[in-house]
Amino acid sequence: MINVSIAGGTGYTAGELLRILLRHPEVNIESVISTTSVGMPVAEMHRDLLGETELLFSDCFINPDVTFLCLGHGLSREFLEKNHLPTDCKVIDLGNDFRNEPQFGDRNFVFGLCELNKELLKEAKNVANPGCFATTIMLALLPLASKNLLQDEIHAHAITGSTGAGKKPVDTTHFSYRDNNISVYKPFRHQHLEEIGNTLVAAGNRQLPQINFVPMRGDFTRGIFASIYTKWNCSMGNDDIISYYKEYYASSPFVFVSEQPISLKEVVNTNKCLLHIEFYNGYIHITSITDNLLKGASGQAVQNMNLMFGLDETMGLKLKGSVF
Amino acid sequence: MINVSIAGGTGYTAGELLRILLRHPEVNIESVISTTSVGMPVAEMHRDLLGETELLFSDCFINPDVTFLCLGHGLSREFLEKNHLPTDCKVIDLGNDFRNEPQFGDRNFVFGLCELNKELLKEAKNVANPGCFATTIMLALLPLASKNLLQDEIHAHAITGSTGAGKKPVDTTHFSYRDNNISVYKPFRHQHLEEIGNTLVAAGNRQLPQINFVPMRGDFTRGIFASIYTKWNCSMGNDDIISYYKEYYASSPFVFVSEQPISLKEVVNTNKCLLHIEFYNGYIHITSITDNLLKGASGQAVQNMNLMFGLDETMGLKLKGSVF
Amino acid sequence: MINVSIAGGTGYTAGELLRILLRHPEVNIESVISTTSVGMPVAEMHRDLLGETELLFSDCFINPDVTFLCLGHGLSREFLEKNHLPTDCKVIDLGNDFRNEPQFGDRNFVFGLCELNKELLKEAKNVANPGCFATTIMLALLPLASKNLLQDEIHAHAITGSTGAGKKPVDTTHFSYRDNNISVYKPFRHQHLEEIGNTLVAAGNRQLPQINFVPMRGDFTRGIFASIYTKWNCSMGNDDIISYYKEYYASSPFVFVSEQPISLKEVVNTNKCLLHIEFYNGYIHITSITDNLLKGASGQAVQNMNLMFGLDETMGLKLKGSVF
Amino acid sequence: MINVSIAGGTGYTAGELLRILLRHPEVNIESVISTTSVGMPVAEMHRDLLGETELLFSDCFINPDVTFLCLGHGLSREFLEKNHLPTDCKVIDLGNDFRNEPQFGDRNFVFGLCELNKELLKEAKNVANPGCFATTIMLALLPLASKNLLQDEIHAHAITGSTGAGKKPVDTTHFSYRDNNISVYKPFRHQHLEEIGNTLVAAGNRQLPQINFVPMRGDFTRGIFASIYTKWNCSMGNDDIISYYKEYYASSPFVFVSEQPISLKEVVNTNKCLLHIEFYNGYIHITSITDNLLKGASGQAVQNMNLMFGLDETMGLKLKGSVF
Repeated sequence: MINVSIAGGTGYTAGELLRILLRHPEVNIESVISTTSVGMPVAEMHRDLLGETELLFSDCFINPDVTFLCLGHGLSREFLEKNHLPTDCKVIDLGNDFRNEPQFGDRNFVFGLCELNKELLKEAKNVANPGCFATTIMLALLPLASKNLLQDEIHAHAITGSTGAGKKPVDTTHFSYRDNNISVYKPFRHQHLEEIGNTLVAAGNRQLPQINFVPMRGDFTRGIFASIYTKWNCSMGNDDIISYYKEYYASSPFVFVSEQPISLKEVVNTNKCLLHIEFYNGYIHITSITDNLLKGASGQAVQNMNLMFGLDETMGLKLKGSVF
Repeated sequence: MINVSIAGGTGYTAGELLRILLRHPEVNIESVISTTSVGMPVAEMHRDLLGETELLFSDCFINPDVTFLCLGHGLSREFLEKNHLPTDCKVIDLGNDFRNEPQFGDRNFVFGLCELNKELLKEAKNVANPGCFATTIMLALLPLASKNLLQDEIHAHAITGSTGAGKKPVDTTHFSYRDNNISVYKPFRHQHLEEIGNTLVAAGNRQLPQINFVPMRGDFTRGIFASIYTKWNCSMGNDDIISYYKEYYASSPFVFVSEQPISLKEVVNTNKCLLHIEFYNGYIHITSITDNLLKGASGQAVQNMNLMFGLDETMGLKLKGSVF
Repeated sequence: MINVSIAGGTGYTAGELLRILLRHPEVNIESVISTTSVGMPVAEMHRDLLGETELLFSDCFINPDVTFLCLGHGLSREFLEKNHLPTDCKVIDLGNDFRNEPQFGDRNFVFGLCELNKELLKEAKNVANPGCFATTIMLALLPLASKNLLQDEIHAHAITGSTGAGKKPVDTTHFSYRDNNISVYKPFRHQHLEEIGNTLVAAGNRQLPQINFVPMRGDFTRGIFASIYTKWNCSMGNDDIISYYKEYYASSPFVFVSEQPISLKEVVNTNKCLLHIEFYNGYIHITSITDNLLKGASGQAVQNMNLMFGLDETMGLKLKGSVF
Repeated sequence: MINVSIAGGTGYTAGELLRILLRHPEVNIESVISTTSVGMPVAEMHRDLLGETELLFSDCFINPDVTFLCLGHGLSREFLEKNHLPTDCKVIDLGNDFRNEPQFGDRNFVFGLCELNKELLKEAKNVANPGCFATTIMLALLPLASKNLLQDEIHAHAITGSTGAGKKPVDTTHFSYRDNNISVYKPFRHQHLEEIGNTLVAAGNRQLPQINFVPMRGDFTRGIFASIYTKWNCSMGNDDIISYYKEYYASSPFVFVSEQPISLKEVVNTNKCLLHIEFYNGYIHITSITDNLLKGASGQAVQNMNLMFGLDETMGLKLKGSVF
């Protein structure tokens, strides 16, 4: 059994981790850390867990095999500085602290995109879990990058559910504002652009592609729908590209290419990413969908844990979708 | 022209008042008071008003003919203590301070349910605007109360939109929580029960009826849907009761009895209240719908203003519904 | 392995059954029957199943150990007449054909409320799966019925998600109508009333209680929220009643009593039922929540299958909630 | 008074026209034509109109000054062929029949984009009302086109509410599917592309710009949110462009440039279009919002009627937004 500790236990990604790990056959949750809620039953905060766990929030870890950091962006570094984790305790960071700056003391963070770095992750002691927008967009483009086919600008719009904005109520997550509403935020300058670009180069694209990315706030809670296109004057036939995508992801148990147009709820509450590819006007157009809390956060984190500990990649992650 | 001042100008009911009054042919908005936003353009706070007004928030009134109090519950009394309104300035309070305790210094507040107190309101200098749940439930029961027919317990469930909870983001109005969710709050002890009971007695019911009222939080923004029933062993025929309802409301320009079952969006963004009446199992069952921000708050407040100033009751209130 | 056949394979309850059974360790899905879609991949209809199954719809069963009937109400009887199931093939009917009329030829249907009939279900060959509203309301009242404490009228409002209305688009499930809308349907005369009453008597209540039940259509997709109350002049203390509820459901792995008020999404996408109990004004007030497609339909059907085949009741049903 | 006839009276755009015209001070609704519902009260179909009109559907016009055609796309031509409208009866077509092919017998249709063709519309006898996506996108680009500044490809994503898909329930407007869901349809090949291109040229752009347009289905009912960008290497300063936009629309009473980022609900239930402009990475990025049933359909149709009959352009169209 893997002894797991979760830091930042009251937030959304921690709650989702708990939902997965409580059902994971090889995991023992040793501690759920929250400095603000010590002693409170975990199921009182994550109310859906009533009847599923008697765990209480604590303020420290004991001797975990792996610690998941579910802290706000920028706080993981601080946590590691303040808390002296045992050297052999692995770390999976769900924040963005180590995605683009992987070194921290003796710890070197592998970028946790399972579909690109599977072999590295099997050996990794520290993993920087990718961002949710980044995962959704990277999985749409990896096969093209691997063949150095991203030669032109990339145009991407992606619309996210409100859980991406976390647990704290603010104006843009106020129900009276958000319901039936749509807005744009951080257009052309979202913080995930850096990890997307770096990853596409790591995957084989020789030059860093320019990505014009417009993130949007959607009036739903879970999921990211990305619509991406780039100029297409490749000698490969259209069907060949689609076949290549399928082949590229053949050993990836959570990424699938759909022949039919896709809609977001086909992946909600699962760890899957679905892709759909069409060609128009000299463009290749790719739609990509994930659940931001699962493949975009806690699900991928568990997938990484499975790889790091030599388990089947899908263990605990064959989740029934909610669909509706 | 009526010179209007609005106190508590940044909240939801003030915004809705502004939307109505900016289109009202007999109103001049003299001041929109907000101690926290003095100098800010009103349209920067109420963003939909872009292009419709150049008003700025101020911290005082000048010489209004009427002041609308859009403050938090309990704060109207405080406002009147601190600010010495001209004696001849009328007051319409949208809070609950004077609904059940109508006397404040020289000011005596008339309960602003237009369908019950129309004649009193024409002479009123101070009006306590009814609560939103209260309005929706009272309008369903007034005709029965007027004939002393409320002899048994009343059972009421009513589900409200999120705007009823105001502008400040809190846990129960967080989109990730509220979307696709339903919950109950303050069952059997909602603060509107007192004004409902008092009003039904004032309408003619000799005894104070017991009302079992369960309010629910709905996953929509505007409107209240109430489902109400009470035992029925009246000698009047069912059709006669429906006819009586129609007759009772014949001179009320915003209350209608529908022969067909009703759904909430038939009144959203209007000042209307629709009622539908059926009989089953020895019960009379009444459904009643309003827009909580309009007939349940700012719309009724303007209706009261119209009555107080001798204008047509519907002036500025023939609003196009949003329906969808 | 249990060989399973599903009749009516294209509908919502069949889809939900497939999602569960494809992950069930002791099930082999032998056939998914749809006379209208023979030969079509199941994952083309239930699009979220892409990558999870290669099954095709067929027009017949082969030799199933159990057949789930996911047909429209009234069509199960017809199916059994037209198709000669092997005598030893068990049947679980998700429709309402046999809930109140349990005999059909040699087949005698046990009412599949696991929390009441667990021992009977372990021996059952044919099961009539309860309705979704019925399940939610019965579980709220069973402990009281078991002590013959339902002596007065019961007042119930329950609001349901749109999936309860099935897959076929109609006016009341049209998005433009249903979004942000609320309505009542079949008040005081819903077809589930009969099975609720019969079950409460079977549970131990000596007289059939009168239930005033108002079903409502909610603007969400999954779940039922029921608010139920009845007069309370029992000699048992309030805390004792809550303790008794916990004790009553101690061996029921999916029913829990929450000390805190509950909200619908705490059970969505799970097989759980949560109850919360309070006392006011001489009434006991119980809120009860389920996912209409799971504990209210397909989840309970699988729970019944587990019991019928001597498996752990929870097998395949420890589902991660979607929560948001 | 203008005598108005509405053909295709049961659909969504007709309902919205009725809501506006019943409040329009210079309009008399002579006939609401529906061949399928002759004799039915209009308020029985458009239920929110209860108490607002006694009109019945009829099967013919009498002697209208103007007929609005609210028929399915492609059916306006057929209607005019079958029904011999008086020669002096003006026609406003809300379908797409005459937008790109303006000639029909003696009737020549002016493209009804008020902000471009105001002077022509004042003289027009026949108007082809623009499409909803088209309006939202054209208004974002008109000022650039007028200066021949659209020299590069245009990238546009726009997400629409469900009312754009009309009244008939279909799979993609089924609530259980659409709620909390997002999908793409007709990417790069939407039928509005032609009228957008033609209009931009008519506005002054010398070449037909290539527009890469991805329409999306949103999980809300009203409104279109468009996010549009194109390469920007203009010698005009950024502030100058914004000033030019304001100047361009100075005489357009419904189009406003917001200094702040915009969100869809700022225009819902109004006839307004809001624009917001920013500059990044060598691109100009414009967001544009309208209500698809108002500025995108029936509101603009009434605006056209006002122009055609010499009335104030805004008459009947100063609508209170619903905002929430």
